[in-house]
Amino acid sequence: MPLKPDIDPPTPQAQRVGFALVGIGKLTAEELIPAARISEEAYIAALVTSEEDKGEAFARAFNLTEGDVYSYEEFDRLAERDDVEAVYIVLPNSLHREYAVRAAQMGKHVLCEKPLSVNVEDAQAIVDACQEAGVKLMTAYRCQYTPEHWAAREAVQGGALGKVKLLDSIHVQVEDDPEAWRLKRDLAGGGPVPDVGIYCLNTLRFVLGQEPQWVFAAQHQPGGDPRFREVEESVSFMLGFPGGVIANALTSYGAYKTTTLRVLGEDGSLLMDPAFPYEGLKVQISDKAGKREPSFPDYNQFGLEFDHFARCIRQDQTPWTPGEEGVQDHVIMAAIYESARTGRVVELPKVDGQDAFRGTQPDVPKQEE
Amino acid sequence: MPLKPDIDPPTPQAQRVGFALVGIGKLTAEELIPAARISEEAYIAALVTSEEDKGEAFARAFNLTEGDVYSYEEFDRLAERDDVEAVYIVLPNSLHREYAVRAAQMGKHVLCEKPLSVNVEDAQAIVDACQEAGVKLMTAYRCQYTPEHWAAREAVQGGALGKVKLLDSIHVQVEDDPEAWRLKRDLAGGGPVPDVGIYCLNTLRFVLGQEPQWVFAAQHQPGGDPRFREVEESVSFMLGFPGGVIANALTSYGAYKTTTLRVLGEDGSLLMDPAFPYEGLKVQISDKAGKREPSFPDYNQFGLEFDHFARCIRQDQTPWTPGEEGVQDHVIMAAIYESARTGRVVELPKVDGQDAFRGTQPDVPKQEE
Amino acid sequence: MPLKPDIDPPTPQAQRVGFALVGIGKLTAEELIPAARISEEAYIAALVTSEEDKGEAFARAFNLTEGDVYSYEEFDRLAERDDVEAVYIVLPNSLHREYAVRAAQMGKHVLCEKPLSVNVEDAQAIVDACQEAGVKLMTAYRCQYTPEHWAAREAVQGGALGKVKLLDSIHVQVEDDPEAWRLKRDLAGGGPVPDVGIYCLNTLRFVLGQEPQWVFAAQHQPGGDPRFREVEESVSFMLGFPGGVIANALTSYGAYKTTTLRVLGEDGSLLMDPAFPYEGLKVQISDKAGKREPSFPDYNQFGLEFDHFARCIRQDQTPWTPGEEGVQDHVIMAAIYESARTGRVVELPKVDGQDAFRGTQPDVPKQEE
Amino acid sequence: MPLKPDIDPPTPQAQRVGFALVGIGKLTAEELIPAARISEEAYIAALVTSEEDKGEAFARAFNLTEGDVYSYEEFDRLAERDDVEAVYIVLPNSLHREYAVRAAQMGKHVLCEKPLSVNVEDAQAIVDACQEAGVKLMTAYRCQYTPEHWAAREAVQGGALGKVKLLDSIHVQVEDDPEAWRLKRDLAGGGPVPDVGIYCLNTLRFVLGQEPQWVFAAQHQPGGDPRFREVEESVSFMLGFPGGVIANALTSYGAYKTTTLRVLGEDGSLLMDPAFPYEGLKVQISDKAGKREPSFPDYNQFGLEFDHFARCIRQDQTPWTPGEEGVQDHVIMAAIYESARTGRVVELPKVDGQDAFRGTQPDVPKQEE
Repeated sequence: MPLKPDIDPPTPQAQRVGFALVGIGKLTAEELIPAARISEEAYIAALVTSEEDKGEAFARAFNLTEGDVYSYEEFDRLAERDDVEAVYIVLPNSLHREYAVRAAQMGKHVLCEKPLSVNVEDAQAIVDACQEAGVKLMTAYRCQYTPEHWAAREAVQGGALGKVKLLDSIHVQVEDDPEAWRLKRDLAGGGPVPDVGIYCLNTLRFVLGQEPQWVFAAQHQPGGDPRFREVEESVSFMLGFPGGVIANALTSYGAYKTTTLRVLGEDGSLLMDPAFPYEGLKVQISDKAGKREPSFPDYNQFGLEFDHFARCIRQDQTPWTPGEEGVQDHVIMAAIYESARTGRVVELPKVDGQDAFRGTQPDVPKQEE
Repeated sequence: MPLKPDIDPPTPQAQRVGFALVGIGKLTAEELIPAARISEEAYIAALVTSEEDKGEAFARAFNLTEGDVYSYEEFDRLAERDDVEAVYIVLPNSLHREYAVRAAQMGKHVLCEKPLSVNVEDAQAIVDACQEAGVKLMTAYRCQYTPEHWAAREAVQGGALGKVKLLDSIHVQVEDDPEAWRLKRDLAGGGPVPDVGIYCLNTLRFVLGQEPQWVFAAQHQPGGDPRFREVEESVSFMLGFPGGVIANALTSYGAYKTTTLRVLGEDGSLLMDPAFPYEGLKVQISDKAGKREPSFPDYNQFGLEFDHFARCIRQDQTPWTPGEEGVQDHVIMAAIYESARTGRVVELPKVDGQDAFRGTQPDVPKQEE
Repeated sequence: MPLKPDIDPPTPQAQRVGFALVGIGKLTAEELIPAARISEEAYIAALVTSEEDKGEAFARAFNLTEGDVYSYEEFDRLAERDDVEAVYIVLPNSLHREYAVRAAQMGKHVLCEKPLSVNVEDAQAIVDACQEAGVKLMTAYRCQYTPEHWAAREAVQGGALGKVKLLDSIHVQVEDDPEAWRLKRDLAGGGPVPDVGIYCLNTLRFVLGQEPQWVFAAQHQPGGDPRFREVEESVSFMLGFPGGVIANALTSYGAYKTTTLRVLGEDGSLLMDPAFPYEGLKVQISDKAGKREPSFPDYNQFGLEFDHFARCIRQDQTPWTPGEEGVQDHVIMAAIYESARTGRVVELPKVDGQDAFRGTQPDVPKQEE
Repeated sequence: MPLKPDIDPPTPQAQRVGFALVGIGKLTAEELIPAARISEEAYIAALVTSEEDKGEAFARAFNLTEGDVYSYEEFDRLAERDDVEAVYIVLPNSLHREYAVRAAQMGKHVLCEKPLSVNVEDAQAIVDACQEAGVKLMTAYRCQYTPEHWAAREAVQGGALGKVKLLDSIHVQVEDDPEAWRLKRDLAGGGPVPDVGIYCLNTLRFVLGQEPQWVFAAQHQPGGDPRFREVEESVSFMLGFPGGVIANALTSYGAYKTTTLRVLGEDGSLLMDPAFPYEGLKVQISDKAGKREPSFPDYNQFGLEFDHFARCIRQDQTPWTPGEEGVQDHVIMAAIYESARTGRVVELPKVDGQDAFRGTQPDVPKQEE
């Protein structure tokens, strides 16, 4: 038969970094399975879950055996697994600290979903534990790894928009289920701010490469809505950046899904709409010459994260979004909540320099020419 | 010859309301001449200008004679002109009060460009003078007369978006000329806030039909830029509306032209982009069913304003945007500046009811079905 | 008073070319009045119309007197008017020949609406008469004068799309009135083809700068519809251009307004949508780098035509779209109808060279940089 | 641990229909693996490939063992596999007949990639063999199973556009590799027509639900280009449908990827752009009320095909796109090539009725309300 497939089959697992996935939910099923499958640097070597039968079903989806599935009680047995070099923590926020610290103490590198934790103290404890154990720690800010967000950052910092004056970002969605852990203060550490508003905050910091100096915020927590007994429904926050640059942001669990980023510069304006979904990101730049919408190769956001963290492990480099990046968002989110509570501007710790909390730049798929 | 034109020629001036145009600039030349020409209810009967020769050139464009052109010194001679029933004041903001009051005292109705004046006191003085003289007063808020803005208001108030939670509006542009009167505090009463930011403010109030309860604002006035010696470059402001609804706005004289309005409701979101130009407005509503962009008949924004004011004169009705509507924006703008100066939230006077400062609803071209 | 208008008033008529407008309809009222008003090179000096009272109303709109209004019977009296150097013929197609020839014989230059006439013979007679009389003749193809269409041409001929392979154009609209002259074969010379399909044809030729070698067409004329007793409702035509380039076109009087142009090249594709309205044209280029939509300064299509023709008169140059350009479209339209009638491909006369029927390039507003 | 995953794990294979995948290429790797993984009705039970090692790599990706991988020589051993109820043929077109017939003779149901074969005769032979063997046969026309294409069909047939007059479709892309089997006449049966142009043809027929009565076509095959030694580069074809409806189509292997469908009706127009990719389809309807773009739930096109065919097998129904649907496209493609060769219109066999070649309607994800 003369027929030749025109692509290569999936590459072997040798040299790739084996991850234990800690927690199995919608994200795991819909995003991480495909991502892990196409990653060139990482693969899933074990699962940790509370539900044995579902774990085994997922295990098959990852080409794992029953022996690769662990309960939370068995978590420490991962220490015996040399092929598990790292863990990816996708648990409710309040559990991040415990499992990250235990993983670090076993010598496993830690990739942790955002937000890094539920408050500054717990987030810092994760950073400290990983540092002490000599393992890598990365906060899984997927929007700092996409070509679209890097194109936005390049437009902002490279001068395409002229001097940047103002920014605006929105991330709102509807959370319907009053029982969702995201609506429990103990488990989540807050309402929409640490879950979706953090995208606005983190992306504003990322595209500017600078840290805000002050914050003002207002919030709304409707009475009588069972969803918002413990956490706020909506928050608006305003950030003051160096040089008089001001950014506004809106976040909510009570509004129809909308995700945007706008940057207003002297010579042009940039719009990402949508700005934060797993796929279908769009970047549009408008200036005197008209509008343009750059095009990028296909990619998988979680695959890019896996790849970056695996490379940092292999090459002994600090991830682009290490634990410190996650701590800084907690510092600012604490100030957002304080401002919303007091009705006053809250000053933030002075931070100099560009990308003060970031590590080695990731490889990002390039815009096509 | 059997040929029949398929349209009617322009209608005669009988019964239409004659206006004296006070001030001739870019707006007059590019927008008001065509608008007046197509208005069915109004026409330009006289011009007031400081430059006689240009006045005469414009006069010809309006089919007027030299005798219809007045200098500012001759302003009071309009009293003799029975055919001039109203004035349209398009002077720098600081002159609004003087000419509006003098017009009112001559018994002329007053259509006044936005902002109504340079501060609350002067704005209120105009309202008082017109009331005392028994003449109509309308603040020329063209965005309260377009079918697109009414469609947005209908979506907000009629339930198409579900309960509204958050709003966001941007109006920024570049002001290049350091000598422009808009950059002189005495003439303009402020920087971008009363000139372009007022569109955000006024439109947010209009689509909600409610008044904000508090405001927080921050501003930036760059040192060393000759344009911003007297006024700020950029302002971000946050408004708290009844029911916990929060609105953000950005305005600037230092950023590439961008004009938007977003309304985030529980069931859908609305985008106007662009939101505030003279033409080409776009309304887009997104919800579970998809996106839709309604279509409207052609119209001229200034023509709609002329028509509405002329009808109010003929039918003895209060304009939809009377002087009080203009005063309220001055009240809020004063609070914006106070907040920006003090760094604190400023509470606003309590105002109950819908459309508390508005009059008779205008006829607006309907969305096509 | 220190106030200075920041624009100049309309320029005087000295040195501008005076036109007599022959025929008054919707186009005159809605498009030509504003266009003539802003033209820097032309003005309306006289009107020819069958309806005296409407003529006088329009006259006022053009700042003319009653003495400037002529009936068709008085047409030849324009000979006495030295200030009328040119006529603009906006009559039903079947009258173009008579009035163009009479104007030429009076020594007036002729700007003639498209299509130039109702068939090749009559169109050629106009060309011959103008040549004999030594006057300029221009076919009013407004889409050969816009910056958007020139940007499309530049993309096609300048290599931005790579080698061009295929093109596609649509111009359809609904003609509702069975009594419209456009539906009378004697007056119009055909159905949608010479009225709206001609935009597809003419623009395809313009962007390529080449002439088709063959045509195939099919048509539909529904029985029982009073509108289509004399002319076809819809026509599809296919054109073969040099080098194997093929273009498809659709035109109709029975379909919801749609106007597009697509050019498919090896490296990119171009879309104009809408392609043919008086304003709001949009050009979008897609290639590996993404999409871009250039931006252009404001302009008036009829103003650009007036300006170009006036300059050709003043500088003794052949217009970019002279009579010959109009004749060539008649040659091809005759072939379209022949093909639709016979069901066979019709070969066209061989024409070599670029822009074989065109004259001096017009000044076109440049894309902003 | 109280944590509950909020989704179910992949469902078990019991009751699902096992497929043997015949041929492994880019489509298999990038589209079929994920599709099979999420199908609720089907799974991949075996692979047939010429390259053992790659086969085994793919096998692992499908959770198969080495024993599930067959060479083409071993194809008939699938007869022993009771769990393989169907084959999915993704071979070069010229091999469809051989493997479809052999599969049918083993009693396996046949899902065959489009085009069904390389000519009418071979296509009919597949239909006959399946009928004789009493197995189901489905042509894999994925665009007859998407919610977007069904929404377009509903707009066309349900009256949303008014009476449909004209249609237009484009499917062009660049084929770079002169060695690709798609450029070999023996293997492919033609050039772009059976590979990409077939989408235009098939979708035009699908949205109308009717069959064309005649076709005219022109083609271009550039000399000297090694890619087009055997097959044409570009084809334009025009189809005449009942009631005077005319459709144009453009297809090419030499133009930048563009895929569109336009339907022009008396009351509105419909645009799909892009119309044919695996994901990201967009439907836009324009009419007097404006534009709207319906929204649909996420889905996988190949998953929908798998599901439909599996259900037809389980419920003993004729697939919506059976072999006869594939034969009809071959009949029309043969006429397209004949017309392009002769330069004449080719009449097609008369076919009455709606959806003359289609079976049981598929379940299609519904537009969200």
